[in-house]
Amino acid sequence: MITFKEAYQKVLKHRLNFGEEEVQLMDSLNRILAEDILADRDFPPFDRATKDGIAIQFSSLLETEHAFIIEGEAAAGVTQQSLINIGNCLEVMTGAVVPQNCDTVVMYEHITIADNKVTINEKVTKGQNIHYKGSDEKAGAVVLSKGIKITPAEIGVLASVGKSVVNVKVNPKICTIATGNELVEVDQLPEPHQIRKSNMLTIEAALLNSTIASSSLHLLDDKEIIRTKLEKALVENDVLLLSGGVSKGKFDFIPDVMESLGVEKVFHRVAQRPGKPFWFGVHAKLNTVIFSFPGNPVSTFANYHLYFLPWLHTSWGIQLDNLYIKLSVPMRIMPPLTRFVHVKTEFKEGAVWGTPVVENGSGDLTSLAKADGFICLEPKENAYEVGEVVRFIKTR
Amino acid sequence: MITFKEAYQKVLKHRLNFGEEEVQLMDSLNRILAEDILADRDFPPFDRATKDGIAIQFSSLLETEHAFIIEGEAAAGVTQQSLINIGNCLEVMTGAVVPQNCDTVVMYEHITIADNKVTINEKVTKGQNIHYKGSDEKAGAVVLSKGIKITPAEIGVLASVGKSVVNVKVNPKICTIATGNELVEVDQLPEPHQIRKSNMLTIEAALLNSTIASSSLHLLDDKEIIRTKLEKALVENDVLLLSGGVSKGKFDFIPDVMESLGVEKVFHRVAQRPGKPFWFGVHAKLNTVIFSFPGNPVSTFANYHLYFLPWLHTSWGIQLDNLYIKLSVPMRIMPPLTRFVHVKTEFKEGAVWGTPVVENGSGDLTSLAKADGFICLEPKENAYEVGEVVRFIKTR
Repeated sequence: MITFKEAYQKVLKHRLNFGEEEVQLMDSLNRILAEDILADRDFPPFDRATKDGIAIQFSSLLETEHAFIIEGEAAAGVTQQSLINIGNCLEVMTGAVVPQNCDTVVMYEHITIADNKVTINEKVTKGQNIHYKGSDEKAGAVVLSKGIKITPAEIGVLASVGKSVVNVKVNPKICTIATGNELVEVDQLPEPHQIRKSNMLTIEAALLNSTIASSSLHLLDDKEIIRTKLEKALVENDVLLLSGGVSKGKFDFIPDVMESLGVEKVFHRVAQRPGKPFWFGVHAKLNTVIFSFPGNPVSTFANYHLYFLPWLHTSWGIQLDNLYIKLSVPMRIMPPLTRFVHVKTEFKEGAVWGTPVVENGSGDLTSLAKADGFICLEPKENAYEVGEVVRFIKTR
Repeated sequence: MITFKEAYQKVLKHRLNFGEEEVQLMDSLNRILAEDILADRDFPPFDRATKDGIAIQFSSLLETEHAFIIEGEAAAGVTQQSLINIGNCLEVMTGAVVPQNCDTVVMYEHITIADNKVTINEKVTKGQNIHYKGSDEKAGAVVLSKGIKITPAEIGVLASVGKSVVNVKVNPKICTIATGNELVEVDQLPEPHQIRKSNMLTIEAALLNSTIASSSLHLLDDKEIIRTKLEKALVENDVLLLSGGVSKGKFDFIPDVMESLGVEKVFHRVAQRPGKPFWFGVHAKLNTVIFSFPGNPVSTFANYHLYFLPWLHTSWGIQLDNLYIKLSVPMRIMPPLTRFVHVKTEFKEGAVWGTPVVENGSGDLTSLAKADGFICLEPKENAYEVGEVVRFIKTR
């Protein structure tokens, strides 16, 4: 049995490259940017008025105190206007090009207009209320770097530089596979010895939150059927995520069948709780990676976040955040297992505190809905103390 | 001009009720649960073996030390088996019903099998490796309470109790409205005095991350066109989100047109930066709420998170988390404006620290992509100190 750290490193070593693809701008939301994005022009593209008011030449203020005759107006969305007499002014609107021969904008709140003449009532600073051409970004500057997740803020930047089509990382083809004769569909009434499929629906939902639409299979405990379906699934997918069928049971055919289909077992069983009977394999020829999770909900959910998500992000070429929080109760973790404990988190005085969720073993589904994530606790001689900083794996 | 706090309270006061609707289980992901969810049976629904091995009656261990003859097997997904001779055992698989006359499960790792007889090699505790019927939840217990966001963990719980259709809060009908003659489409090459539409695409993307698909409009600076289009939009939507057109400019017709269409102005302009020229109104008869944001990207993005999102969550009957982080640099905020400062956050020693992002005024779009959110700083006499705890509004 290998340690969590060894298992984690082995999983990451088998990262894949799914390639890149072009998608429409709005479809790139929450995807991983696969190209550096350059400013196609200066930003702002012109000296831009940031207030509604008048545009003047500052030097004319210095000469003699005078009222400014309004020559005309410069609206947003029209070509650059020009001030003819530099002692005059032009009305100017937010977003408009600052007119030629003007270098300063005074907002309506600071002026009085009478008879087409403007009196300025407040102190004016040369260059005020102008957002200068290229002051945010020069044409050609990298405004977004590849390898980031595209959030709403990045959608705005992409739109600004004219990226109606965006190059993003391809999502892997994933099949989620439930195993076991005891499982029935959600809309069925289970017999007393049956339970509804839930485990892989949780995983399908988690994948959707990573923008991945997966396919799904349910394998009954029949070695021949398992073999036929897995053979097809290995060819058609980059990743198989299985739940159940990797314990020591008589109907746990998965490891045998996998190996007979050319899948190399990388490891089976990890010194951790929950999630110990985790089986991980790769089909080198087909370039398919297989995560076979233990069958209970908490183990599957934990291992999805502990192994699959970091693998996915590594394959995309990006890092998951390393989060650390404070423990709100003391805990003692004895060797040999690395423990992952559900916690509810709370922001208090600028720190994030984690409190273990009361649970009833790794079969307890409802406990997942009470938690915000897992803390990772390596065994050690002394107890973990209140306030001790521990690694946190977010699941919500 | 009212304060941020006053404006915030006025916005929340005008919450709406969009009602409830039934959706398919997987479509409920990230929606707001509108019903309490009860366990339809005990969880687990039967005394469930949690290990592969043998099931025995513990008392038979005490009588005489003996090998256990294997009578048969109890697989997962079959009806409850029965041990006939209580000195014997049944093989049992993870997920199976513990057989009648058995009360203890011993895993394969702790036994030796030879000639259909089992020798137990480790100490056994009565009742071990059994997940008892109803020990997680009793039938009828509330397993999820209404008013929570449905994440993957909740999808699993809903599936377990047979909710193939889920009652969720209805999403509001929202139209995002860009204004201004200077705007061109993303795939167009702008003239020197034009810019591409980006602001409302950011908002559309943010809405999508709240599961809301919005419609959109672009209003040119023509009072009659604005009137006609707004009249229709007011009827067809619960919410209008506008950007631009609420400053003091000559073409800022929106407030006038709104009022002529029966919209009551609740307030215009808030003592805050960015986002000062924010206009908020309601059409009481049509039950439509109008958020008219200033036209620059940072102001729109800030006010979306400061006002619209809390309003949306209040309308759904749920609360947004109140987050607090630590300031990594000193800052001085002079009266009278409440300041919202972009920050990049970092987890350090269990605390979250916020560092202001270098930005170039509220027209600077790329700064949004560098930040994780805004901190809220009320003006005060003394400077904010390093490590001071401040309110944080997450935007990523």
